[in-house]
Amino acid sequence: MTLNSADPAFADRLRDVLDPKAFREVSPHYLDEPRGTWSGHAGLVVAPADVAAVSAVMKAAHEARVPVVPYGGGTGLVGGQIMPDGPAPLLLSLERMTAIRTADPVENVMVAEAGAILSDIHAAAEKVDRLFPLSLAAKGSARIGGNLATNAGGVNVLRYGNARDLCLGLEVVLADGRVLNGLSRLRKDNTGYDLRNLMIGSEGTLGVITAAALKLSPRPVGTAVAYAAVPDPAAGLALLSLARDRVGEGVSAFELISGQSLAFLEEKLPQLRRPFDPAPEWMVLIELGLPAGLEPQAAMESIIEEAWERELVADAVLAQNETQAEQFWEVREQIPEANRLIGSVSSHDISLPLSNLPAFIDRASQMVMGMGPFRINCFGHLGDGNLHYNVFPPQGGDLAEWRSHTGEVKRAVHDLVHEMEGSVSAEHGIGRLKTGDLERYGDPVKLEMMRAIKAAFDPHGILNPGAVLKG
Amino acid sequence: MTLNSADPAFADRLRDVLDPKAFREVSPHYLDEPRGTWSGHAGLVVAPADVAAVSAVMKAAHEARVPVVPYGGGTGLVGGQIMPDGPAPLLLSLERMTAIRTADPVENVMVAEAGAILSDIHAAAEKVDRLFPLSLAAKGSARIGGNLATNAGGVNVLRYGNARDLCLGLEVVLADGRVLNGLSRLRKDNTGYDLRNLMIGSEGTLGVITAAALKLSPRPVGTAVAYAAVPDPAAGLALLSLARDRVGEGVSAFELISGQSLAFLEEKLPQLRRPFDPAPEWMVLIELGLPAGLEPQAAMESIIEEAWERELVADAVLAQNETQAEQFWEVREQIPEANRLIGSVSSHDISLPLSNLPAFIDRASQMVMGMGPFRINCFGHLGDGNLHYNVFPPQGGDLAEWRSHTGEVKRAVHDLVHEMEGSVSAEHGIGRLKTGDLERYGDPVKLEMMRAIKAAFDPHGILNPGAVLKG
Repeated sequence: MTLNSADPAFADRLRDVLDPKAFREVSPHYLDEPRGTWSGHAGLVVAPADVAAVSAVMKAAHEARVPVVPYGGGTGLVGGQIMPDGPAPLLLSLERMTAIRTADPVENVMVAEAGAILSDIHAAAEKVDRLFPLSLAAKGSARIGGNLATNAGGVNVLRYGNARDLCLGLEVVLADGRVLNGLSRLRKDNTGYDLRNLMIGSEGTLGVITAAALKLSPRPVGTAVAYAAVPDPAAGLALLSLARDRVGEGVSAFELISGQSLAFLEEKLPQLRRPFDPAPEWMVLIELGLPAGLEPQAAMESIIEEAWERELVADAVLAQNETQAEQFWEVREQIPEANRLIGSVSSHDISLPLSNLPAFIDRASQMVMGMGPFRINCFGHLGDGNLHYNVFPPQGGDLAEWRSHTGEVKRAVHDLVHEMEGSVSAEHGIGRLKTGDLERYGDPVKLEMMRAIKAAFDPHGILNPGAVLKG
Repeated sequence: MTLNSADPAFADRLRDVLDPKAFREVSPHYLDEPRGTWSGHAGLVVAPADVAAVSAVMKAAHEARVPVVPYGGGTGLVGGQIMPDGPAPLLLSLERMTAIRTADPVENVMVAEAGAILSDIHAAAEKVDRLFPLSLAAKGSARIGGNLATNAGGVNVLRYGNARDLCLGLEVVLADGRVLNGLSRLRKDNTGYDLRNLMIGSEGTLGVITAAALKLSPRPVGTAVAYAAVPDPAAGLALLSLARDRVGEGVSAFELISGQSLAFLEEKLPQLRRPFDPAPEWMVLIELGLPAGLEPQAAMESIIEEAWERELVADAVLAQNETQAEQFWEVREQIPEANRLIGSVSSHDISLPLSNLPAFIDRASQMVMGMGPFRINCFGHLGDGNLHYNVFPPQGGDLAEWRSHTGEVKRAVHDLVHEMEGSVSAEHGIGRLKTGDLERYGDPVKLEMMRAIKAAFDPHGILNPGAVLKG
């Protein structure tokens, strides 16, 4: 299908349906991706103020066959928000639609516009003594519409699920401007096909999310945070089982961190207080969030004690207060930034069936080390089976030189993941970075049905062309 | 589209691809629905033994344009499994695909074939000290494929979600026999559009579910069950908030039951031990399931005590042992059977935003009583906002006579639900009973997109024709 650039004539056409404030400068921050790996282009950036304006923009783009890239906080890691070539797209930013319309502690429901920033949503939930549990490193700039479009994960998936599990309803503008009114606050609604979940995770290729009804949770009454050094990832999983046997859903987060993670933090962000010095080879960050009647600090101590006796834990530090708990989390959350500053040869956001996970880490290490003297930073959401398995040049090595290995390393890691029944995109999505992987590893029948759905929802192929499905 | 009956010539064709045991007698139990309201027909009933055989059947049906009704346990309440007219369909029963392939307590995953009976799945989970939380009155005959196809709800949705939330992956045979291999055991997998959730709740109109990977949960260490008489449904909701503030996710179930429910049980199933005599106008059944370290009985007592002080509870009985807890649940689970024995003028499976729920009950009662001397049995899953709002003839009234009011009552109740932002099918689905409601109350854009998806997945319209979407 031939698409046309968002040229000045098209911009003029939009002036009839948009207020002047909607027209934004095409500045670099719309076009660069967070890791600085590559840049996109755009003919025009607009930020409509409401759903009617989004609908008018899409209608015009549909008629003029102009590609549209829906844009949230720009924090995506797989290039879903970056169109590198082809006709210059219209970049449709949700940045002006940031209202949090309601936050109801009785219904445990919040209704927010797509451009609301994740940390603002956290604050609004806290104001009514509730929790919106989706949390990730980019929470200060990520927008909820993008979080939903990519089915974001983060550190609380273990307990509360991913973005998909936290959404009750969506308002979505379709490719041709029609508005799907699905902003339901209902917990149960079995009236027809599940279009909400079809939109969630479709990365802006089936529609533009403009508002969402979100599930809120009770805030745990007491929390405890600890770092535990574990002999290996299998011990980490055993520790997780132990913790869950003790406190059930009370395990809010369970993150695996490698010694290499701390070494990178020491090198690039030395001001951060690291939990262990020297760093153990493997450690886990545990957060408990418990109801009234249970002492979280005591529960954590008792879990660690039993783990110690079973030789699942070699050393541990418990946060003694709120500030220290925040410092513990800061260490975890700054790992991606340290990685960025080091510069990776290849990064992998992968998941595995839990019982295959320890064997994967062993096999992958041997394999990657066999390919060169790489440094591996393996960390992530252990309880979800989701690893960020990132490969870096040797100490003092020149990244530019080692980048020639990127393709080979990526392919080998992804082949192994696939062989071990895992996924090559656990939480970041396909974007434009992994369309080849989806074709290589995805079920062919699934791909056929995805193409059929795309054709039905966006017959001219204007929505985020080249993302998820190759053009 | 013209479809052809599953006639003897088509049966002969299937003999090439199916073993002789797959051919079943077209007996009445395949054709009657649980409430006995109407019957279906079928030209042929087959029960394939594996996914390859299901695929071969669908391929043949697709080529011959023969309608196919996928059939699980036959417990659906909206006629999704009953085709009353048109060309005689092939009824495709999953009754021979009952294997539970794995139940892994480390991964917390079970893989089961679609024909596995829900209570067998419960037992298999219990064997590995885990919980599969989906539970409903028909658990002894409902099959998991049907539970997923209808996105079944039940009594534990409050804590664990509905069928959708308990499924990690699906194997599905499409209309033309292609097999969608999505039997993933992964907790996180963002590789492409969410076809799993599109299939879940599509009621056999987009594909035939043949196997599923299911999420297991830790078994709560201690449970407590109580009945509390509450002054009104609003007090019930306040009691739920109180309980959740105390024990968080530990509230496993919270069911509203009306005095009318107990009166019907007394009339039709007098051998059941009722919790209160005389029956209060409203009561709730509460189940707590708590981790180690918390005494569930003490937690329940303390919740009830505070509720008593706040005048949210007028009377309460706590189950003193396992047997009594089962008796308490038996009362709840036999309500649909008592209703069936009385015979309703109109039954409604509805949901409302929680904050509209008490007002709905008041307004609906006034409205229905204004239409005649009906008896109303309102009960259901209060925490989910899901009511079973059922209308019966007056004491001693002749059902046949009062059934002339069915259309009028149903319409009035559904109109009110819609006005109050609720759903006219909370957990039972659309089936064939509510296709008119879906057209009347559903978002027109949603309906358009549903039709587009149906056309893409089943171009000849052979899969469960007339269910969900009118032909």
